[in-house]
Amino acid sequence: MTRSEVTQKILSAKRLKRLSWKQILAELGGGSSVYVAAALMGQMTLRPEQAERAAALFDLGEEEKLLLQEVPYRGSLATAVPTDPLVYRFYELVQVYGTTWKELIQEEFGDGIMSAIDFDMAIERQPDQKGDRVKITMTGKFLPYREY
Amino acid sequence: MTRSEVTQKILSAKRLKRLSWKQILAELGGGSSVYVAAALMGQMTLRPEQAERAAALFDLGEEEKLLLQEVPYRGSLATAVPTDPLVYRFYELVQVYGTTWKELIQEEFGDGIMSAIDFDMAIERQPDQKGDRVKITMTGKFLPYREY
Amino acid sequence: MTRSEVTQKILSAKRLKRLSWKQILAELGGGSSVYVAAALMGQMTLRPEQAERAAALFDLGEEEKLLLQEVPYRGSLATAVPTDPLVYRFYELVQVYGTTWKELIQEEFGDGIMSAIDFDMAIERQPDQKGDRVKITMTGKFLPYREY
Amino acid sequence: MTRSEVTQKILSAKRLKRLSWKQILAELGGGSSVYVAAALMGQMTLRPEQAERAAALFDLGEEEKLLLQEVPYRGSLATAVPTDPLVYRFYELVQVYGTTWKELIQEEFGDGIMSAIDFDMAIERQPDQKGDRVKITMTGKFLPYREY
Amino acid sequence: MTRSEVTQKILSAKRLKRLSWKQILAELGGGSSVYVAAALMGQMTLRPEQAERAAALFDLGEEEKLLLQEVPYRGSLATAVPTDPLVYRFYELVQVYGTTWKELIQEEFGDGIMSAIDFDMAIERQPDQKGDRVKITMTGKFLPYREY
Amino acid sequence: MTRSEVTQKILSAKRLKRLSWKQILAELGGGSSVYVAAALMGQMTLRPEQAERAAALFDLGEEEKLLLQEVPYRGSLATAVPTDPLVYRFYELVQVYGTTWKELIQEEFGDGIMSAIDFDMAIERQPDQKGDRVKITMTGKFLPYREY
Amino acid sequence: MTRSEVTQKILSAKRLKRLSWKQILAELGGGSSVYVAAALMGQMTLRPEQAERAAALFDLGEEEKLLLQEVPYRGSLATAVPTDPLVYRFYELVQVYGTTWKELIQEEFGDGIMSAIDFDMAIERQPDQKGDRVKITMTGKFLPYREY
Amino acid sequence: MTRSEVTQKILSAKRLKRLSWKQILAELGGGSSVYVAAALMGQMTLRPEQAERAAALFDLGEEEKLLLQEVPYRGSLATAVPTDPLVYRFYELVQVYGTTWKELIQEEFGDGIMSAIDFDMAIERQPDQKGDRVKITMTGKFLPYREY
Amino acid sequence: MTRSEVTQKILSAKRLKRLSWKQILAELGGGSSVYVAAALMGQMTLRPEQAERAAALFDLGEEEKLLLQEVPYRGSLATAVPTDPLVYRFYELVQVYGTTWKELIQEEFGDGIMSAIDFDMAIERQPDQKGDRVKITMTGKFLPYREY
Amino acid sequence: MTRSEVTQKILSAKRLKRLSWKQILAELGGGSSVYVAAALMGQMTLRPEQAERAAALFDLGEEEKLLLQEVPYRGSLATAVPTDPLVYRFYELVQVYGTTWKELIQEEFGDGIMSAIDFDMAIERQPDQKGDRVKITMTGKFLPYREY
Repeated sequence: MTRSEVTQKILSAKRLKRLSWKQILAELGGGSSVYVAAALMGQMTLRPEQAERAAALFDLGEEEKLLLQEVPYRGSLATAVPTDPLVYRFYELVQVYGTTWKELIQEEFGDGIMSAIDFDMAIERQPDQKGDRVKITMTGKFLPYREY
Repeated sequence: MTRSEVTQKILSAKRLKRLSWKQILAELGGGSSVYVAAALMGQMTLRPEQAERAAALFDLGEEEKLLLQEVPYRGSLATAVPTDPLVYRFYELVQVYGTTWKELIQEEFGDGIMSAIDFDMAIERQPDQKGDRVKITMTGKFLPYREY
Repeated sequence: MTRSEVTQKILSAKRLKRLSWKQILAELGGGSSVYVAAALMGQMTLRPEQAERAAALFDLGEEEKLLLQEVPYRGSLATAVPTDPLVYRFYELVQVYGTTWKELIQEEFGDGIMSAIDFDMAIERQPDQKGDRVKITMTGKFLPYREY
Repeated sequence: MTRSEVTQKILSAKRLKRLSWKQILAELGGGSSVYVAAALMGQMTLRPEQAERAAALFDLGEEEKLLLQEVPYRGSLATAVPTDPLVYRFYELVQVYGTTWKELIQEEFGDGIMSAIDFDMAIERQPDQKGDRVKITMTGKFLPYREY
Repeated sequence: MTRSEVTQKILSAKRLKRLSWKQILAELGGGSSVYVAAALMGQMTLRPEQAERAAALFDLGEEEKLLLQEVPYRGSLATAVPTDPLVYRFYELVQVYGTTWKELIQEEFGDGIMSAIDFDMAIERQPDQKGDRVKITMTGKFLPYREY
Repeated sequence: MTRSEVTQKILSAKRLKRLSWKQILAELGGGSSVYVAAALMGQMTLRPEQAERAAALFDLGEEEKLLLQEVPYRGSLATAVPTDPLVYRFYELVQVYGTTWKELIQEEFGDGIMSAIDFDMAIERQPDQKGDRVKITMTGKFLPYREY
Repeated sequence: MTRSEVTQKILSAKRLKRLSWKQILAELGGGSSVYVAAALMGQMTLRPEQAERAAALFDLGEEEKLLLQEVPYRGSLATAVPTDPLVYRFYELVQVYGTTWKELIQEEFGDGIMSAIDFDMAIERQPDQKGDRVKITMTGKFLPYREY
Repeated sequence: MTRSEVTQKILSAKRLKRLSWKQILAELGGGSSVYVAAALMGQMTLRPEQAERAAALFDLGEEEKLLLQEVPYRGSLATAVPTDPLVYRFYELVQVYGTTWKELIQEEFGDGIMSAIDFDMAIERQPDQKGDRVKITMTGKFLPYREY
Repeated sequence: MTRSEVTQKILSAKRLKRLSWKQILAELGGGSSVYVAAALMGQMTLRPEQAERAAALFDLGEEEKLLLQEVPYRGSLATAVPTDPLVYRFYELVQVYGTTWKELIQEEFGDGIMSAIDFDMAIERQPDQKGDRVKITMTGKFLPYREY
Repeated sequence: MTRSEVTQKILSAKRLKRLSWKQILAELGGGSSVYVAAALMGQMTLRPEQAERAAALFDLGEEEKLLLQEVPYRGSLATAVPTDPLVYRFYELVQVYGTTWKELIQEEFGDGIMSAIDFDMAIERQPDQKGDRVKITMTGKFLPYREY
């Protein structure tokens, strides 16, 4: 059994039980919707009590419950350049702004990177008369290159 | 003359004159540091008065000034998967969170995408005792798929 | 169960029942043949009543009916450059006319893009003595880059 | 001397002389703005009298004038998947609608393709209260596969 | 059921019944061996009476018979550059002669292409004292680029 | 100096002197137009007397003359899948007919390949009321796999 | 049934019966260990009596026996650049020595290639005090390019 | 100055002075023609006295002489899959025989590889009535995987 | 049965039995945790007694036990550039330090490589007040290029 | 001026002045040979006094001196899979050990990665009777995934 089979099973149960991510988050005891959804999509790990609740909610077996607590081999995309338009737009941001991010972050912080590990993110709806906006806020610890 | 030659010339002048992006932004009349830096990195367009100031600041000629006002062929990376660690981390976010963003945004907004065109972004330093963090805030208009 | 399994099942039922896309469109209550066919091919979503009718027409089960109403992970091609001649010709148009479209659309509208989301398309037969022609008409909202 | 050097020279002259594609089309004696722009962008051929006018307008030499009348090695993109957002949206249409186009065109016309050679295209502005739209109309001769 | 499953089933029946392509062609009522073999290999369509005979010959079911009459998604190779030596040699011809074909065909016919749709091909044995030769003759309609 | 520089120089001289491939073939003493054009396009070798004539015709220097007699590193295309429509159609034939050629040639000749080395080819115009056709005839020695 | 399924079945039987390639070669009536192993690995064809013996040795059925006598679609590697270290070293030789082989073979033989079809190869152990060596000897017929 | 510029310069001098690799080998004091040619092609290093002689023979300057003694960044091919037919045949051998080599070498020697570093190779002409053959003999030290 | 199926089965048993790699190593009789884990992950071979113990521990059958003693086709990654962040960081080291390693190792040892075959590696925890560190020590025999 | 031009200039001066990396390290005031060589190879930054010394040692101009203090766009390899054997062996380690590293590091430390930023490395010669070994020691801070 693989993690992606668990993801398929969860998505199938979610669909048949008409569960929303909001409901799922509540059933699993709250937390960040991004982090919890990412775990159920096979990219993060759940704590034991969360996995227990997920197993109950989605009718998962023992191994599936354990897999949710295991570190997955990450990478959710089938192709290096994503084909889905919603996902592609984020890739496009990397293509368009990649070198700009590098200039501005390294001017402000020095040589180093924004961590994608010590990292968090939130997605919100920002009401706007011209059409509501998706607001994404992310913070990542700045990690300076170590001179040695 | 190509836009990337203009970018190289600007980066060279910036280097030799010890200009920071903050100083450059001020010299060009302010605005978003992300937008203006992206334009000087060859990914956005400047308004005429901004291009005028940029030409003065970086000793650019007539054609270079015009090129800064032209829509560039966008895409700042030499490879589909970026090799630079700072830029790669953003690609990694797309790999790890791509399908999660899709689930959460489309549950909240319906079928559609976050625009990367009607879009803005800011980069800030977030002080933190365990090490300062890079904070990135982006908003993009939600564009619903049109049923026709 | 995945969306592409639903697509396979629909195509199989269409084949065995000798249904044409025209008949299918009528059975589903009309609309744009492009949009509806794209949904049944796994690239768009159906409204509940359309999914209900599709389920009846193609003998689909509960989960399959729900999947037709879910936003799919889009991208219908197995390779970045399509191998099928009919589909390839459209890729060829992008290769040959890509930079020209960019020049003409941006001269007329300014910096921005033609939306592929707020978008519609129709395919018609155009009678012609030298051989009938395929006529494709598409309109996409112009989205200006937001200066910020 | 290569065709892409001629394209660069033409774009540079267009920029410095503040010429629009509309003006260029008029100077070259009219015709389709798509076809003529494509030729100047290095993807189509000009007739001798058009090349003559182009040479005068852009200060081209003898070989450059001849190159404009020669069949180019077509393909205007540096990467198989275009990175520029405006051009990418067209690639996205191929990804999303590729198999749908195949189904609908072949149901209507039988086994064959829409020619990308015996082909024409026009780009127009379609006024719209919610934001003007880019309207693209293309017709291509249907070419049936020859059974032999 | 997919077309490539039908191809696998046909090849299996051909193998177990010790049928040659020559015998198969005769059983299907004659025609071009290239065209008919290509159809059975999943790249062309059969007419109803041919499909009927093929179904009888290879013990195919109803859906398989219908699939043979449907336009396939063409492309018979698993990789962009074929690995099999016999097939690779044809790719090699494209690599070595590609630009030469372009020069000679366009000098003779003007700007355009040799159609791969209105196309036929024959393969023959050409006896030769130094070793028999494979002779391939192909004709494709010349399609001139349409100036518009 | 590289072979592709020689090719560029030859094409430039051909252009400025308004030479056709037919005239060039005559000036070089005849032979196959395919073979000679391929040599001048940088894919085959010329005999010394042919190179001598080519040097006179195209105003080539000593090293260029020698390069025309040297075996080139073959491969005329910048990308594995050609972008030019005329050249692509030949690639498409490999995609569509690759496995069919394999079946038919190996049924007729046994296990082996059609040589692309002991090979010749001719391109002719085939008059046709519905539009003239490009006729390509190629023969390649059959090379049987050696059982050892 | 596909040829690679036959290869998997043979390798499984070989494993469970503790057969070495040496024993297998003897059971199949001798010959070149390279050729016979390549055939059983799915890359060459066996003669009928060899296939008969192979079927007995590995408990193969009728179709599997026939498949061993059929010309396979060659290419044993899952990726263009092999990942296995033993196999990669041979790819590395092509990378390092490719242009050198070309220079030396073509100086000695003229324009042409070493055939990979009329070809044989042997692998031996070469005792050596500093560590035994793998000795590979290959001969391929030189095939001169045909001037035509 | 790069190593590939030195290679170009050597090949140019070799061409203009009508030197053969045999003559060059003699001028450089003998040794293996494969090794020495590989060094001059930019893939191996020369000893100081060899570099001295090479500099005299090809009119090289000081830096070029030093570069010939430096370890190059190896890899002589512009593409992962070589396009030149002579070189491609060797790649084809890796594709066809890769897994067979692995089976036979590892049965004879155990788990490990044939070194491509502690390696030598010779190319000879093998006279043959049916056409002379290229004979390549290579030996590489067997390196066992170290269990640790 | 393939080696990767054995790996999946081992990981499943490890998960359900709550075994750690440390426990597994003890059960298999000790040795290097890196080597033994690599073998169970399908990249190295086990000795017979180790395979026997592994079979008992993970409830493996006869063929699975034999497969663990067979040399695998190595390569544990599904893509040339790994998508998992932990694994990617090692790829990043190759990208950033590749040419530096080459300079320093070859200055110290001469022309040659660090063997990845006669190689060992250990992973340890290095306590550190600012956060514990992963310490990796690897040694590989230097293999000098053989001049021949 | 680009960073890779500075690297080329440094390597040229190093070559002509017969400098070793050891001497260069001493001239630049010591430190880690890996870090300093990486900086001069264009992958790390130098402190101002180091850049000053480097400029004196290699005869660099003002802009070159500044470039050495600027954060480079990292990535030293021309291809995703390196072709040079010394560098490739490190890529091979990632291919063979990637999933093993993941298992062992995450069992010991939990979900997270070994930083390639807060990282150091040393290369040493390890004397060994059977042939000296390259010893590489690297430590990277363990970064735990942040649950949020």
